[in-house]
Amino acid sequence: MGSLKLLPVWLTLVVALFAHGVISADEKGSKFEAKLSPQTEACIGCHSQISPGIVEDWLSSRHSSMTPAEAMKKPFLERRISATEIPGVLRGYAVGCYECHSRNPEKHQDNFEHMGYRINVVVSPNDCNTCHPVEAGQYAGSKKANAWKIIMKNPVYHTLVSSITGMKKVEKGKITMQEPSPQTLQDTCLGCHGTKVEVKGMKKIYSNSMGEVEVPDLTNWPNQGAGRENPDGSIGSCTACHPRHSFSIKIARQPETCGQCHLEPDVPAYNVFKESKHGNIYDAYKSEWNFTNVPWTVGRDFKTPTCAVCHNSLITAPDGTVVAERTHDFGARLWVRLFGLIYSHPQPKSGDTTIIKNKDGLPLPTTFLNEPASEFLIDKTEQIKRYGTMKNICQTCHSTRWTNDHFAKLDNTIKETNEMTLSATKLLSEAWDKGIEDKSNPFDEQIEKLWIKQWLFYANSVRYASAMTGAPDYAAFKNGWWELSENLQKMRDLIDLKEQVKKSRQPQKKK
Amino acid sequence: MGSLKLLPVWLTLVVALFAHGVISADEKGSKFEAKLSPQTEACIGCHSQISPGIVEDWLSSRHSSMTPAEAMKKPFLERRISATEIPGVLRGYAVGCYECHSRNPEKHQDNFEHMGYRINVVVSPNDCNTCHPVEAGQYAGSKKANAWKIIMKNPVYHTLVSSITGMKKVEKGKITMQEPSPQTLQDTCLGCHGTKVEVKGMKKIYSNSMGEVEVPDLTNWPNQGAGRENPDGSIGSCTACHPRHSFSIKIARQPETCGQCHLEPDVPAYNVFKESKHGNIYDAYKSEWNFTNVPWTVGRDFKTPTCAVCHNSLITAPDGTVVAERTHDFGARLWVRLFGLIYSHPQPKSGDTTIIKNKDGLPLPTTFLNEPASEFLIDKTEQIKRYGTMKNICQTCHSTRWTNDHFAKLDNTIKETNEMTLSATKLLSEAWDKGIEDKSNPFDEQIEKLWIKQWLFYANSVRYASAMTGAPDYAAFKNGWWELSENLQKMRDLIDLKEQVKKSRQPQKKK
Amino acid sequence: MGSLKLLPVWLTLVVALFAHGVISADEKGSKFEAKLSPQTEACIGCHSQISPGIVEDWLSSRHSSMTPAEAMKKPFLERRISATEIPGVLRGYAVGCYECHSRNPEKHQDNFEHMGYRINVVVSPNDCNTCHPVEAGQYAGSKKANAWKIIMKNPVYHTLVSSITGMKKVEKGKITMQEPSPQTLQDTCLGCHGTKVEVKGMKKIYSNSMGEVEVPDLTNWPNQGAGRENPDGSIGSCTACHPRHSFSIKIARQPETCGQCHLEPDVPAYNVFKESKHGNIYDAYKSEWNFTNVPWTVGRDFKTPTCAVCHNSLITAPDGTVVAERTHDFGARLWVRLFGLIYSHPQPKSGDTTIIKNKDGLPLPTTFLNEPASEFLIDKTEQIKRYGTMKNICQTCHSTRWTNDHFAKLDNTIKETNEMTLSATKLLSEAWDKGIEDKSNPFDEQIEKLWIKQWLFYANSVRYASAMTGAPDYAAFKNGWWELSENLQKMRDLIDLKEQVKKSRQPQKKK
Repeated sequence: MGSLKLLPVWLTLVVALFAHGVISADEKGSKFEAKLSPQTEACIGCHSQISPGIVEDWLSSRHSSMTPAEAMKKPFLERRISATEIPGVLRGYAVGCYECHSRNPEKHQDNFEHMGYRINVVVSPNDCNTCHPVEAGQYAGSKKANAWKIIMKNPVYHTLVSSITGMKKVEKGKITMQEPSPQTLQDTCLGCHGTKVEVKGMKKIYSNSMGEVEVPDLTNWPNQGAGRENPDGSIGSCTACHPRHSFSIKIARQPETCGQCHLEPDVPAYNVFKESKHGNIYDAYKSEWNFTNVPWTVGRDFKTPTCAVCHNSLITAPDGTVVAERTHDFGARLWVRLFGLIYSHPQPKSGDTTIIKNKDGLPLPTTFLNEPASEFLIDKTEQIKRYGTMKNICQTCHSTRWTNDHFAKLDNTIKETNEMTLSATKLLSEAWDKGIEDKSNPFDEQIEKLWIKQWLFYANSVRYASAMTGAPDYAAFKNGWWELSENLQKMRDLIDLKEQVKKSRQPQKKK
Repeated sequence: MGSLKLLPVWLTLVVALFAHGVISADEKGSKFEAKLSPQTEACIGCHSQISPGIVEDWLSSRHSSMTPAEAMKKPFLERRISATEIPGVLRGYAVGCYECHSRNPEKHQDNFEHMGYRINVVVSPNDCNTCHPVEAGQYAGSKKANAWKIIMKNPVYHTLVSSITGMKKVEKGKITMQEPSPQTLQDTCLGCHGTKVEVKGMKKIYSNSMGEVEVPDLTNWPNQGAGRENPDGSIGSCTACHPRHSFSIKIARQPETCGQCHLEPDVPAYNVFKESKHGNIYDAYKSEWNFTNVPWTVGRDFKTPTCAVCHNSLITAPDGTVVAERTHDFGARLWVRLFGLIYSHPQPKSGDTTIIKNKDGLPLPTTFLNEPASEFLIDKTEQIKRYGTMKNICQTCHSTRWTNDHFAKLDNTIKETNEMTLSATKLLSEAWDKGIEDKSNPFDEQIEKLWIKQWLFYANSVRYASAMTGAPDYAAFKNGWWELSENLQKMRDLIDLKEQVKKSRQPQKKK
Repeated sequence: MGSLKLLPVWLTLVVALFAHGVISADEKGSKFEAKLSPQTEACIGCHSQISPGIVEDWLSSRHSSMTPAEAMKKPFLERRISATEIPGVLRGYAVGCYECHSRNPEKHQDNFEHMGYRINVVVSPNDCNTCHPVEAGQYAGSKKANAWKIIMKNPVYHTLVSSITGMKKVEKGKITMQEPSPQTLQDTCLGCHGTKVEVKGMKKIYSNSMGEVEVPDLTNWPNQGAGRENPDGSIGSCTACHPRHSFSIKIARQPETCGQCHLEPDVPAYNVFKESKHGNIYDAYKSEWNFTNVPWTVGRDFKTPTCAVCHNSLITAPDGTVVAERTHDFGARLWVRLFGLIYSHPQPKSGDTTIIKNKDGLPLPTTFLNEPASEFLIDKTEQIKRYGTMKNICQTCHSTRWTNDHFAKLDNTIKETNEMTLSATKLLSEAWDKGIEDKSNPFDEQIEKLWIKQWLFYANSVRYASAMTGAPDYAAFKNGWWELSENLQKMRDLIDLKEQVKKSRQPQKKK
């Protein structure tokens, strides 16, 4: 049943019967200003039956209703594509299934024969690069695109990852640790950081509608983490923020998208935003705002920022002045990295942070005592430049003084939270020095874990809350100063308690 | 003041003056295609003054604007009532106050004389059964309808409930525990599981508008828990999801409804959904979706699933094909029970899980060492069948391979989280064996409570996050693998620490 | 560059070129029924360029489109201003920049010369008092307006604040504490409670658009906490709930606004609402409700309450009857204070709670053993009166019996949670009596912090959950009864463990 040899004939029929009929009738022709390529018509012929949700999603997209040729006629600021030249074969058709899933086949390990066509399973940033080269280029240099590498190829972070997600067994009362399974990594850290997707070969799967079909056998799939390593050798995943087949700019501009990964307890950016006055106003009025206009106009399209406003969108004033240029390197407007590793520090120069080496020889942006690895971090001049870019956005609604005072407060917060981390580090050192816990793996015992919480959960929360004034609880009781202070007491008491157990187990010295 | 004897006269006046006047004028008649029964007119006569919010809510409902006779004329897939026959007296009137609050008076202990009519206080699933028998029947067999019984009549779970919600006193430094009060149970566990509502007699209450009136004296009321035991002997509460007097299908289909009970830390299904890509897209576009169409069409009415899509709604493809049949047994499409008690296991055969007996003779679906009570759980064939139903829904938007790989990942998660629970169980056994804590009540001391968290909070969170890929934080830092691992260290340290206290208190042996 | 002397000329040009042109063109004149004062026109001339977001926000407000004279012509119940007389100069113009930022200059320490006009930086409740005297008066007497004083001038609470937010250093293993910095207070407690804003002098700042300008140098600014002390001597901040320049009643009526400060873990009112059935229905239907109508009609404008419905808005029934009068003293409808300090107690008589003195001579509404400072708390008669006001609102949708039973349940919850706090207090006393922790500061050690959590996080959560039935998780597993019970075990074990460390450190007595 469903033999592959017969399918092309069946396909033709399906296309003839359904593609034009079902789809154009249902959509009343309004969507089809843009002509479909014959290959995309063939895709839709089957997939409008086999996976109708995908087709409907794509029908709601700009890709389905406008050709690249038309898109390029838009005034510069309104253009959503950054290519100055589009390959001829793509210009006159809607951006359909085949246009994206057939790009650069020579690079794609995951290219395979599917119903008479050569198809890539994974569409990568390098494929999107065809029409969106500026965005793809900026993204490739960002920490986001390097997120898999950052966490898996830095031995310190990799140890942290393994200590958290590795299976623990208990044998004779002793806890032993294994390396984490790929699936658990995929569900946890690599859910955001991205997996490494490779082709192991081909495998046969049984499809309800198709019978047995042969497809590339991919590792660590499905995954849409921001730093995914793709089977064409590229890094990153556009679908992390522009999901599935609507490629919606509205979704990407809503904080819920960023909030999938930037959330409590380690990076509570989303939670803090939601709790802040900006988030409060967003909640009350978002249904009246315009999340699709390009450029995006402050005061008209939106009244308070979402994540995208401050961090990456092209923003204009009501009179058309550009307030901030678009960037898809999401750290490009940031001077300081609030996220403590283990202290907050200036942004790294390169998105690939595995190249950093600090004074202790470790691949960390600061030492355990907070000495920065300055040559790998942006300098004062660059910090000031980026600070100016951000301030420019704030000042569309806030006075110079307000903005200055706000960021002066943030500077103080960074200083104080770094000191609170240092206090915890001193207590951890005491535990190590006294042999109460073992520093060979600094992440797997209880006092060590309290120390991790101090910087990863509590200091981070306080900093994000300070950076987006108006979420006092993340600075106070919810992973904030309450915890920063209580945690030091917990560390102190646990050192004393465990020291006593240790002593009682030591062989009694003769007196 | 407000004597009952005079009220009927007053009622007549009120009906004459207000019912037609106020309501039809305000609603511009548009709502009143459906004729009201004389009894319902009488109800509204007073209640549009006394409890106008209820009347307005009902006016916004389908019940107020369509008679059962009209509803039965709809094409089969569009019908919202499943009865093939409706009692004659109900057919031609809107489904109003009296139609629901007067059903099956002979069964209702809570039936009473109210302003000249016999009224039931509580409308039960058995009353809704009049027009919705298929739904009522499915629900009655579900775990939800049995939720009160499950938690109160299973001695193991009942001990857990009491250990949590019972009042604790401190006398001479010792903590003693009492049985929980009915009110606290009503606010906590039974808020979701439902209370047992019985009639103790009649009582007089003073109403501002009516003066003194006599009403049935109900126990554990008000309550709308999913497994409420009703004064007509039926179990369940439709209003848990179709609340109050709008009986809104929109509310029932929105994840916030399910999220009232299925939320962190024990069942973070809602939290995981909100954080997932599905939830992200839902947040961005829900205001543009249609939450009331029957049947409910993937890609047209909604673009990503809510809880109801996967677990119970009648779903069709854009071409009208049925993707999934409606069910009100919410476990009917599930093969595995993610919720660990204390391990994840195949779904139970019966919604009444009090009948289960495992190898240790306990009413639990697995033993403490994870041996399943297989004869009470669905077998492999049934598991595969249900898996197929669910996969069919996924595949309206995802490929066969994607779906297979997703659920293979979930299988691994179940295995690993069960093992992490087993590791905790081994540590607890050590504590019990050494006499550090007392197993007579396995839920009331600190190491025991850490053990409960391992399965009830952390293993559950990881499983829900894995089942709805895209909420990496619930698998990682937020009650996920971070806690699963840290918790074992906490148990290890606490055993060692408490062991030392125990030893120091033992009378010194002579050497 | 940007010399101040040249600016007035430039200003005139900007006004001529932009104010009328840009703004009225873009807004199609529809906003400008209300005439602008010449001063406000001048403001807008520059600020539509310099801070366009503010101007756009104001353009969306009622202030920009209606003069006070017009507003006063509205029927009484529809009026949003409560003044019976408006100063002549204000009557005929829109309520613009200058109208608010120039009021009562003689009282404003922060009044300064700005581009030829005398401007106040901060607009205070005393300025809003011009048109809204009833609201300003009610607010001034509330706990909210006194929030800075309550927390900073009560030595007990001030010690708690300092213990949480003060920097801790570790020297030779010992944790030492400093007083918190003003900036950290501003980010934490005073983010909600408000800061004390004073003028230190003038300072020069560099503005991108203006060059160097001189402005008042304010302490603890920016801040919009509810109890801010203003540079005109008044207390409170209207913008805490009616933010920025839209002064939106819609924002103030949405629970997200209240939720900025009233949220978990200490005051989870917002979280409980969101999780309750009321919040569930709000989520499903809020986009269809009317959040701007005055008066606000139950069943028509909204179907379930938000915070504002129960606590302060003017509510009417569909027939126009007043259900509840408007109040801006947010405690005025409350008989009991759920928020435990350290026990739940009747509402205080005065919004300034620093005047309270209990039997132990402490400025707390109860003693540590729960004896109320009754003479400072409202009496039974007043409690019953307020209870009646609240019940009246509930009964627009719920029966008398339902409402009675609901609040009887709350009474029981208050009793039980107070007892659970008392149990924790007894354990703390034991720790103090045994010298395990030091009571001189009752808030800085680990057992003390567990005790604080008992009342501040857990007892509070259970009470809020009970008060808004339908959020069983905040009563059970999420900072609820689970924690109330586990926390006592933690305190018990920690006392035993620390006692042992203490003993081992004491010099051995000779036998």
